Parts: sequence; C-alpha cells; structure tokens
Amino acid sequence: MESIRVFAPASVANVSCGFDILGFALNTPGDEIILNQNDSGEVKIVDITGDDGQLPKDPEKNSASAVIINILKHLKLPLGIDIRLHKKMPLGSGLGSSAASSVAAAYAVNELLGNPLDSMEVLEFAMYGEKIACGSDHADNVAPALFGGFVLIRSYNPLDVIKLPAPEELYASVIHPRIEIKTKDARDILKKQIQLKNAIKQWGNVGGLISGLYTSDYELIGRSMVDHIIEPIRSILIPGYDAVKAAALDSGVLGCGISGSGPSVFALSRGSRVAREAAQKMKEEFKKIGIESDIYVSKVNNQGPIVLEQA
Amino acid sequence: MESIRVFAPASVANVSCGFDILGFALNTPGDEIILNQNDSGEVKIVDITGDDGQLPKDPEKNSASAVIINILKHLKLPLGIDIRLHKKMPLGSGLGSSAASSVAAAYAVNELLGNPLDSMEVLEFAMYGEKIACGSDHADNVAPALFGGFVLIRSYNPLDVIKLPAPEELYASVIHPRIEIKTKDARDILKKQIQLKNAIKQWGNVGGLISGLYTSDYELIGRSMVDHIIEPIRSILIPGYDAVKAAALDSGVLGCGISGSGPSVFALSRGSRVAREAAQKMKEEFKKIGIESDIYVSKVNNQGPIVLEQA
Repeated sequence: MESIRVFAPASVANVSCGFDILGFALNTPGDEIILNQNDSGEVKIVDITGDDGQLPKDPEKNSASAVIINILKHLKLPLGIDIRLHKKMPLGSGLGSSAASSVAAAYAVNELLGNPLDSMEVLEFAMYGEKIACGSDHADNVAPALFGGFVLIRSYNPLDVIKLPAPEELYASVIHPRIEIKTKDARDILKKQIQLKNAIKQWGNVGGLISGLYTSDYELIGRSMVDHIIEPIRSILIPGYDAVKAAALDSGVLGCGISGSGPSVFALSRGSRVAREAAQKMKEEFKKIGIESDIYVSKVNNQGPIVLEQA
Repeated sequence: MESIRVFAPASVANVSCGFDILGFALNTPGDEIILNQNDSGEVKIVDITGDDGQLPKDPEKNSASAVIINILKHLKLPLGIDIRLHKKMPLGSGLGSSAASSVAAAYAVNELLGNPLDSMEVLEFAMYGEKIACGSDHADNVAPALFGGFVLIRSYNPLDVIKLPAPEELYASVIHPRIEIKTKDARDILKKQIQLKNAIKQWGNVGGLISGLYTSDYELIGRSMVDHIIEPIRSILIPGYDAVKAAALDSGVLGCGISGSGPSVFALSRGSRVAREAAQKMKEEFKKIGIESDIYVSKVNNQGPIVLEQA
C-alpha cells in the first residue's frame, strides 16, 4: 500500500462518574489523516488544516508524526512518509483532539504497513502521541477513539483496557463553548484528597453506569451519570455550566456532564430527537451569556477509526 | 398458611473493591427461621439456637422479631407469631449474620401472609432489622441475602439496588477465624479522607469486577479484586491476614479479601476444586499462629432465601 486516508473520532472522557477510567467515542467530529509513502526516508508533515496554525510542524513534536516515527523505529523500517492532517474538530476542547490525531496516525500507519502491530500495541503508541501533546499518557480518550464504544481503563500499571457495550439507541449531544481551559489548570484545581463518603457514591455510580451499559438500561445509565468529586470543582471553570446542564436535563437527556477536562459539555440521550433538542437548548444557554458554541449530535461510535481511502 | 420454615444465606459484603456497594450471597452457611401463627396476637421468640445466648430475646430488640413486628404493623395485621431462629452461622463474623436473620424473617412472614409486599419492600424491612442489630441500615449484606447472586447498591438515597449476574463456575471459599472484631471498630479505624489517586484505582476495579461478572471473564474478576482503600487498614485487625491471603492466591484463587468488616476472609475461584484447596490452605495458615477457624466452600447463591417447609 502506498497511501491511506483514515478518520479517527473525537471522544468524551470521564463520562461523569468515571474520572480517568471511562470514555466513549463519537461518530462526529473527528480528525482525518492522509499518509503517502515518499522516497526521502523521512517522516514529514506536509500539511495541517483546521488548527489555526496552533499545532507544531516539527515531526518530533507533533503527536501524529511523533507516533509514526516511533512505530517505524520500533519496526526497524526506515520508511519516508508524508503526513497531511485535517483537524475537523476544535483543539483544547475536552473532546480528545490530540487523542484523535494520535489514534488516526497510529491506526493509519499500521494499516499502511499491513497491520504488523496488534491493537494493544497500536493503543500504546497512540498513548505516546497523547503524552507528546498533553504531557501525560492518559488512555481515556485514546482507547475509546481506537476501540470505539465505551471503554473502561481498569488499570494503567499494567494497562488493562476493557471494551464495554454501547446500547443501540444511545446518542450524545456535545457542545463546545468557544472558551479555553488548559488541561493543566483543570488538573491543578482538583484536590488530592477526597471524602471517603463521596468516593463510595462515585464507585456506586461507576458500577451502575457499567451495569446499565451491559443491560441497555437507559434509566440506570442516567441515574448513574452523577459526579460527586470532579464536576463540583471543574464546573467553576465553565461559565454558565449549571444553566447549560439544567437545560439539557429539562430536554429529557439521561444525564449531562463535563467532557474530559472541559470546556465542552456532553449529554447522553435515548434516541436522536432528544439529543438534538438538548444540544440546541444548551447552545441557547451559552448564547445568553455571550458565549458562542459549536454543537455535535452523534450516535455513540462503536467502531473506532475508519479507512476512508487506500491505494 | 399457618407455618413456614425458611433458609436465608450468609453473604460477603464489599468484595474487595466495592466497599459499601457490593455483596454476594453464599449457599452455605445461613440461618433458618420457623414461624407459626399463634392465637395470642403477640410476636414471640420461642427459641433461638446456635447463638450461645448472645442474641436478645426481647421481640423489639431482636432483629428477626423486630422486622416481623414492623411488617405486621405496616400491614395493620394484629397477628400472633411464634418465632424459632436457628443460627447456623457465626455471629459477628463479617458474613452478614444479622442480615441473614433479618432477611429470613422478612421473607418468611411475607410468604406466610401470601406475599403482600413486593421485593423492594421486603428489602427495606430487612434493612430495618439490620439497623436494629448493627445501628446502621447498610444493604450490602441484606440485599444479596434477599436477591441472591451479586448485588450492587448504587445509591442509598434513594435506594437503588441492581442485581448482577454470577458466572456459573464461580465458587467462594470463606474462612471464619474465631476472633472478634466489632463492626464499630472496623468502621472507626477507617480514614474519612482518601487519596484521589487511590479512589481512581478503586473505581477502575469496581468497573472491571462488574464487567467481569457480566461477561463471565474470570481473569478480569480476579484482576479487579484489589482494594486500595479499606483492606490496607482493616487487615491490621486480622492476625495473619497477609499469610492467609498469600496462601489463597498460591492455591490459584482469582482473588481474596476481607469479608465485610471481617474477621472472615473470602476468596473467589473458578470451580470448586481450587475453592476447597484454598480454604484448607487458609485454615492451615491461621492454625500456624494458633487461631482456630471454620471454613465454608460454596457456589455463589443465585437464589436468595428458600422456603424449606410450609403448612
């Protein structure tokens, strides 16, 4: 294979109660990557669109190219590859932008080379891309972007990733308010110690959410989407959060929370109609306080990356 | 119906990672209760065996009779009932002794009366019995004793109880060392604040354990049976705990932990052979330090209470 074009999805990490251990993938938005073998023996970034010039073009510093360089080094294949990256989602939005690029790159180069890596190896290389971009090798965006559906990261050491089922009628509404929250700030604001009684509620909800996913019990999924630990602190960083969440719940969504470290907010609904209505209502709430936003309504992506073209 | 004889099972609360939210029922040991209608209009305790005289015989203070009095009051039925309670399990062992009695009583009287209460009402009355006995209305022994199998208590307020599947080949080894730990001491020793990083590991394991139960993934169940919060503290109260646990793990069990607030220790295995061997090895370890113990090996009880006789 000489060239390949791959889509990798955005993802919602944490899913209210599952801080650092749960995430799910979206059908839209996401990133597109195009790889073409070249004769130079070098990995080059030829083009990046949709990033407003924000992403590094140094192949060692850009997560997509860094992932590819690392994989080629691991496989001892001194190939040249031209990379074109089309960011079709906002950066720094809490929707796993760097994870989508890292997964797109790792998945695409593995396909291009005839799948020498198994899926856990692809995951680990994509996590390296996440580390390049964010400084930490979290898997709660990378793993759902790669495997699709809901994913549980039970443990990091050793890495233990479990794909969970996604009920057929589950839709996500995601809204990205055009404000910036740095992932580092969203981490630093958290307390290192928490109350045991709140932790008990949280792991009860993790159990309920996972049980609801296995049994397609939409009401249980909704009841379990409560975050007693992180949301009360992080929501302070998102102006209008309470009103936006209330608007979503009023529209009949199952539950609503912060996507990853924010500022995007997500809701889960049974069926697309509620999901679309909720997204509109959430947008109106942000607009009331002068914040423009982008909305995405999508079934939960159960597939992960897609090969769009190859030659 | 004039009389009924019911068995209700012992149970293992917490199940390593699920402090206060998870429990499962055993086929053995358990309690037997016999109810006979009398003409006096009073609820009386006629006989208690197997408690070494430890349980109160005042009908308002004994959990079994208190549950029955409460149910009759709720139903406005001024019936007289003679109660015979046969404790066939150790008291204060961490195996849900008071829960078994409370569930046996609530289930038996409901059957005797032709099932006027639904199962959630029976649960709430049984929780009242637990409160009489222990001072707190925890459900993590009562709910599995009543519903059988594994049970998740997602939330207490409102009460939200979810029955989880129990894989077919799952066996429990339970060992009760003949030492005493007061539930209150086992609670007081815990810290009110915990590290967020440990809480994250804990809810990852809760997710893994529940996922393993749904998919009959025995290895995942085992990997998830790790307690980063409670066991490191409570195990100090159980002499020889580390050696007993090591003996169980060496025998090939999936995982091992403290049953409820102890002092009993439990392990889960795939198949009965490993479960039996592990129980023997655990017993030998306690014996080495001069502690006598009782062992129980049982399939996970998927049924809850059983009506043994009625007339």
